[in-house]
Amino acid sequence: MNENELLERRRRALAPGYELFYREPVHLVRGEGVFVWDHAGRRYLDCYNNVPSVGHCHPRVVEAIATQAALLNTHTRYLHETVVQLSERLATKLSNGLGTCWFVCSGTEANDLATQIARSVTGHHGMLVSEYAYHGNSDLVLKLSTDSYPADRRPDWLGVVEPPNTYRGPFRLGEEDLGARYAESVSRAIEGLAERGHAPAAMLVDTSWDANGVLIPPHDYLVRSAAIVRAAGGLVIADEVQAGYCRLGDTWWGHDRYGLVPDIVTLGKPMGAGHPVAAVVTTPEIAAAFSEHSDYFNTFGGNPVSAAAALCVIDVIDDEGLLENAHQVGGHLAAGLAELARNHEIIGNVQGSGLFWGLDLVGDRSSRRPIAREDTKRLVSRLRDEGILTGVTGRHGNVLKIRPPLPFGRDHADHALEVLDRCLREFSETAVS
Amino acid sequence: MNENELLERRRRALAPGYELFYREPVHLVRGEGVFVWDHAGRRYLDCYNNVPSVGHCHPRVVEAIATQAALLNTHTRYLHETVVQLSERLATKLSNGLGTCWFVCSGTEANDLATQIARSVTGHHGMLVSEYAYHGNSDLVLKLSTDSYPADRRPDWLGVVEPPNTYRGPFRLGEEDLGARYAESVSRAIEGLAERGHAPAAMLVDTSWDANGVLIPPHDYLVRSAAIVRAAGGLVIADEVQAGYCRLGDTWWGHDRYGLVPDIVTLGKPMGAGHPVAAVVTTPEIAAAFSEHSDYFNTFGGNPVSAAAALCVIDVIDDEGLLENAHQVGGHLAAGLAELARNHEIIGNVQGSGLFWGLDLVGDRSSRRPIAREDTKRLVSRLRDEGILTGVTGRHGNVLKIRPPLPFGRDHADHALEVLDRCLREFSETAVS
Repeated sequence: MNENELLERRRRALAPGYELFYREPVHLVRGEGVFVWDHAGRRYLDCYNNVPSVGHCHPRVVEAIATQAALLNTHTRYLHETVVQLSERLATKLSNGLGTCWFVCSGTEANDLATQIARSVTGHHGMLVSEYAYHGNSDLVLKLSTDSYPADRRPDWLGVVEPPNTYRGPFRLGEEDLGARYAESVSRAIEGLAERGHAPAAMLVDTSWDANGVLIPPHDYLVRSAAIVRAAGGLVIADEVQAGYCRLGDTWWGHDRYGLVPDIVTLGKPMGAGHPVAAVVTTPEIAAAFSEHSDYFNTFGGNPVSAAAALCVIDVIDDEGLLENAHQVGGHLAAGLAELARNHEIIGNVQGSGLFWGLDLVGDRSSRRPIAREDTKRLVSRLRDEGILTGVTGRHGNVLKIRPPLPFGRDHADHALEVLDRCLREFSETAVS
Repeated sequence: MNENELLERRRRALAPGYELFYREPVHLVRGEGVFVWDHAGRRYLDCYNNVPSVGHCHPRVVEAIATQAALLNTHTRYLHETVVQLSERLATKLSNGLGTCWFVCSGTEANDLATQIARSVTGHHGMLVSEYAYHGNSDLVLKLSTDSYPADRRPDWLGVVEPPNTYRGPFRLGEEDLGARYAESVSRAIEGLAERGHAPAAMLVDTSWDANGVLIPPHDYLVRSAAIVRAAGGLVIADEVQAGYCRLGDTWWGHDRYGLVPDIVTLGKPMGAGHPVAAVVTTPEIAAAFSEHSDYFNTFGGNPVSAAAALCVIDVIDDEGLLENAHQVGGHLAAGLAELARNHEIIGNVQGSGLFWGLDLVGDRSSRRPIAREDTKRLVSRLRDEGILTGVTGRHGNVLKIRPPLPFGRDHADHALEVLDRCLREFSETAVS
C-alpha cells in the first residue's frame, strides 16, 4: 500500500473535515495492550487513547464481542439478560441510587438525551456549561460545546461558567477560597440566564475538564456549584465520558473524586473499549418522571453485543485491578512529571491525576504565556517520531495531553518520561519563543 | 433463568420507557439467517427485523468483526484503509457524485448531521418532513419526527408535508395527477415556512414512509417534490435508514426507485447488520462547503471494526445476490399478499415492495375505517404464538408490518403467508368490530 495513494483515496472518499493527527499521519494496522503498530511495523507506546480503555484488542473483550455477535444481535424490544446485567453492574459502580440506565451509541447521544431529560423533568430550558468545554456534536450538544463555535453565536439559553483552572484562570493556587470563588461564576451564569428569561435545567460538567487542558478543581468547587444549580431548580449532569472508568486513578468516576452526587451521569468513549456504546444513568425517580412523556428507544443502544462488550470491560477492570493500577502508576507519573517540571522551564504546570495528565507549556514561567499551538503540535510530532503517541489540548492549544489505556504500567511510564525529557530538552533548545 | 425474575430485574435496571414488544415478551437467545430462537428453544421466523440485514449472525460479518476487533480498533484520526474502502464501495452503489462520506453511529446521528449540513450550506433554517414521520430522537431529530410529539409543539421552522398515501390520504389511486397533487403539499409547506419567516434548508424524506405504514408514492411524486424544494433553495435528504440496502427489491436505495437524485443520503440500521454504524453521504461540493465551517469528528464513527462490518455487509449482499433475492421473493410475497387480500376483507390495502410490506387493516372496506391499534397488536401477538415475528406501524396503528432480513426465501414467504392466512381467518371471525 502506497501511503500517498491511500491519502489521496481518503481525500476523495471522506469529507474534507476528516482531519488526521500529525502532518505525516500515522497509519496504524495493529494494536495490543498499550502498544500500536504502523504499516511499516513500527511500534508506538500509546500515551493518548482512552477509548481502548482496557488496552488495545483485549482478548477478553474481543472474545465477548465475537461470541455474542455469533449468537444473537437484536435490540432491547426483545427480552435479553445481558443489558440488564450491564445496568446492574453499572449501578454497583455508582452511588446514591444512580442505577437506572438508557443505553445509546455515543457520548454525543448520551449528552443529548441527558439534556432532554433535564429539560423535561425540570421544565426549565437553560443549560450551564464551562467555557471551552467539549461534550459532543449533535445539533444540541454542539451548542453545549463552547470550544466548537464563536461565543457570539451562543443561544440565549446557554450560561457559560468559568472553568476551575487554578493555574491559568482568574483565581489561582495560593489564593484563598478558590472553590467558592469559582463557584460564584455559576451564580453569575444563572443570573445571566434569568436576565434572558431562562432558568437552568442542568449544569453539564466534564469532571476532568479535558478540553481545558485537564483540570483538577478546588476540592469543594463541584459540591458548591451543584448546590447553587440545585437552589435554582436545576440538575447536575456529570459527563464522565473522559473522567469515568477509573481514568483519574482514585475513583471510578470523576464526580466521586470531588464528593459530587450528580443527578444524571453520562458515559461514553472507554465504555466498550472501542465498541460504540454509551449510556445515561440516573435515579429511578428522574427516569420515571422523564418516561411519563417519553419512550426513548435507541435501535443499537444496549443491543446484546454492545452490552456484552461493555459488561466485559467492567469485568476486566475489576479482575485486572485497573483502578488500582491507574492509582499506582498515576502516582508514579505524577512524581515523574513533577521531576520533569523541575528540569524544564517550558512546563508551566503539571495538572491531572491517575492516567490523565496535561502539561501546560509556557514560553515564560512568570507571565505564563502559553506556547503557540503549532509549537505544541511540533512537540507531539517529535514524540511520535520517538514512538510515543500523545495529544494537544487546552484553550490555547498549549497543553500536552497524556491519557494512555488503563493497563499502562510503571515501565511504560518510565519510558515515556525518559523520551519526554529528551524531547523537551531538544525542544527548549530550538523552539521556545 | 426465571422469566418473571428477569422481567423484574429489567424493570429496576432500565428506564420505564424501555418498552418490550408483546404483552408476553419474547426472550431471544440465538439467531441464524431468518430465524431466531427463544430461551425455551422455540424457533421464530423473523419477518420483522431489518437490522440483521444479511441475516442474523451472518458468519462472514461475525468473522469480519471478530478479526478486526482482534487486530486494531481506533478512530479516523489515524490513517486506516478500511474506512476509505467502505466509502469507495458506498459510492459505487450511489449515483450522481454522491460519494463523500461521514461515518457516525446511528441513523439519529446521521439525520442530525445531515440537517446541520443542509442548514450550513443553504443558510436556511427551515426543514420539511412528512406528517407522522420518524427520523430518530436526538433533540433536533426528534423535532423532525412528527410521529413522536403533539402537533401544537412543532417549532416554527418545521414544515409538514402530506405523505403520499394513495390508499388513505386525500388523493387516492384512480384519481388523476396524484404525484402533482401530493407535491402541492410541499409547496404549501414552503409557503407556511415563509409566513413564519423561514426558508427550507432541506426536505428530509424516508423513501419508504415506514411510520406511515410503508407507502409506495405516485411514481413522479419525489422528483416533483424535489424540484419544488430546490426552487426554494433547499436540499433534498433521502433518509435511507429503512428503504436503503436493497429493502424495496428493485434498487439499492429507495430514492433510486423513484428516479430521485438526493443531495444528501443518510444510512443506518441495516448498514452493519447489527453493529452500530451509520453514515451521511453527499457530493464533494456540499461536503466541501460544510467543511469550511465544521471539522465534524465522531469518535466511534468509521472506526476499523465498524468499517469492516459495514464493508462486509455490502460484500455479502453482492456475493449472495440479495438485491435480486429481495426482488424475486418480493414479487412472490406481493402475489401472495394480493391473494390474501382477495380472501380477507380485513385487508384494506397491501402496500410495499421487495421485502417491505404493510397490510393496512380495516374494519370496513368501503369506509376504510382502520382497525384499532390494540387489535393489530393482538394479531401480531397471535402471529408470534404461531412462530412468526411481525410488527405494527402506521398513523392509526392498523398496519401489519412485514420486513424480514434480506435472505428471506420463497419457502419462508410461503410459510409466513400460510400462517398469516390462518391467523387472519381466525382473527376476522373473532374480532373485527
